[in-house]
Amino acid sequence: MNDDNASFYKGRRVLITGGLGFIGSNLAGSLVELGAEVVLVDSLIPDYGGNLFNIAPVRDALQVNVSDVRDANSMQYLVRDQEVIFNLAGQVSHIDSMRDPYTDLEINCRSQLSILEACRNHNPAVKVVFAGTRQIYGKPDTLPVTEAHLVRPIDVNGINKAAGEYYHLVYNNVFGVRSCSLRLTNVYGPRQLVKHNRQGFIGWFIRLAVEDREIQLFGDGAQLRDFVYVDDVVDAFLRAGASDACNGEVFNVGGDGPVSLRDLTELLVEVAGTGRVRYVEWPEDRRAIDIGGFYADSSKFQRAVGWKGKVDLREGLTKTVQYYRDHLSHYVDAPVDNP
Amino acid sequence: MNDDNASFYKGRRVLITGGLGFIGSNLAGSLVELGAEVVLVDSLIPDYGGNLFNIAPVRDALQVNVSDVRDANSMQYLVRDQEVIFNLAGQVSHIDSMRDPYTDLEINCRSQLSILEACRNHNPAVKVVFAGTRQIYGKPDTLPVTEAHLVRPIDVNGINKAAGEYYHLVYNNVFGVRSCSLRLTNVYGPRQLVKHNRQGFIGWFIRLAVEDREIQLFGDGAQLRDFVYVDDVVDAFLRAGASDACNGEVFNVGGDGPVSLRDLTELLVEVAGTGRVRYVEWPEDRRAIDIGGFYADSSKFQRAVGWKGKVDLREGLTKTVQYYRDHLSHYVDAPVDNP
Repeated sequence: MNDDNASFYKGRRVLITGGLGFIGSNLAGSLVELGAEVVLVDSLIPDYGGNLFNIAPVRDALQVNVSDVRDANSMQYLVRDQEVIFNLAGQVSHIDSMRDPYTDLEINCRSQLSILEACRNHNPAVKVVFAGTRQIYGKPDTLPVTEAHLVRPIDVNGINKAAGEYYHLVYNNVFGVRSCSLRLTNVYGPRQLVKHNRQGFIGWFIRLAVEDREIQLFGDGAQLRDFVYVDDVVDAFLRAGASDACNGEVFNVGGDGPVSLRDLTELLVEVAGTGRVRYVEWPEDRRAIDIGGFYADSSKFQRAVGWKGKVDLREGLTKTVQYYRDHLSHYVDAPVDNP
Repeated sequence: MNDDNASFYKGRRVLITGGLGFIGSNLAGSLVELGAEVVLVDSLIPDYGGNLFNIAPVRDALQVNVSDVRDANSMQYLVRDQEVIFNLAGQVSHIDSMRDPYTDLEINCRSQLSILEACRNHNPAVKVVFAGTRQIYGKPDTLPVTEAHLVRPIDVNGINKAAGEYYHLVYNNVFGVRSCSLRLTNVYGPRQLVKHNRQGFIGWFIRLAVEDREIQLFGDGAQLRDFVYVDDVVDAFLRAGASDACNGEVFNVGGDGPVSLRDLTELLVEVAGTGRVRYVEWPEDRRAIDIGGFYADSSKFQRAVGWKGKVDLREGLTKTVQYYRDHLSHYVDAPVDNP
């Protein structure tokens, strides 16, 4: 955040859906620092990532409203008088979306419509920044992936996230509810869900390293990904929320170039000083849905608002490992006593 | 339909959702001719296009099941034992989708998931052909539009139709429920809804011509579109249903090159011998949502299954005008008596 933009949030009324989750809570911390009046909406669905401990440092400086974005009546009330909405609530497990596609639809499609309808009817001057995902691209035709790449989701979650994003663009273009979407790649950092591995691999790998356990990589670990530290993602949301240059647009927000999973995990084990990597055969069912390499080109967003990630992978992993060393018990289930 | 493919449908159990609508009923007629065992599902929602008169010529040669695709239990039963499902049920009014986005979501997203879940759980060997739409492309970057063009819908209906299509592809790729989508452009012909103008302009223009009324064109009528006669679209569905080369793919199905609205309406008035065209200023609200020229490249589908439209615009319009001259009373509300 540059100084000009930072002053934008002083005294601003800001709502964060999914505000107790990984990115939402980090964003909330920054907004409190910048002097915003922050309301968090989160329904604390077990296993989704919402966690009151995430906002422990700023608990008294913001409001928490426990409610579900599927509850259209509550949302209709909550969006009123807000100046910026960071719309981060979502079902993010791809696996869960294939087991229960209806819940994914309700949260990622229908609720997005409710929120936007509420804005259109009760607060059309609000600015909305949606948390999109690189998952909607599916298996890339070319690398790095730009926003000109086809949207071709490979699971129900990706489809519904794509629809949720499109709604924001249509409400911007047709109804003038200013909105944009940040298509996030692999975000990591403190406050990430590490309780299970159904929400992506990086948080899970960090937990395994911190617990001095074995990290399994399929094949030779040569698959490329890009990784972006959560503070940089928070900066991206703050810039998007403050800039009308983003309205009606989608932007990739990713890491600074490709890293192989082999290099990622070796670095992780090195900075942690614990954990180890083992290479295993590709399970057939996983190979069938593998998208190969993926990394994004974020230059469109850089051009629009001057954003650039500042935290390199070594620094980010070091901070993240330290966070979970200090606070792991708040992020994992209590161990079951053996009788 | 070539002879090889035609024999494919003899004795085949076929379900058509939206079977009493425009394309569904024409498809039903052909399938009956080919010797298929046809079940139509339609909920006859007023103003949507379903019309029992559409199947008058084949009423005794098929089964009609009045039910709604939103009714997951009924669909679960109805998909069983079917060999091919032509999945044409949908909310097709763009205007309605912006007034009531939730109904559009229920029909075009949630119901598609229900149908596919029913197939996955109760009839995974079925083949599904989905009626997609060129509307999901939005305002084209380049003409003619190929399937490599970005999906960038401009209204809620386009978004939900895109999601419905993506579900089919994911269920094909992940669960092996063989599916494909035909992205139809401007289809016209007998049995089209002409009761109101909220489902596209061409049926409405045909009605105005038949009723010897004035057709209004915005600006100079230079906008380009492509038009495809319903018999050619029926042939496209039959080919897609019979060919595994289509599985997991999307195909444009459009007319044979661009035609300006000016040329279309002049030809229409000429073949009808009634009606007239008037050019009027663009209304501001319409200009704001105008997508400019649009016409599709259907060569991918031609390569896949050998399809090519056979009915030219003059012949198609002549047949369509004749149909509505003979049967208009079945397609418009009875005139209100003045007291």
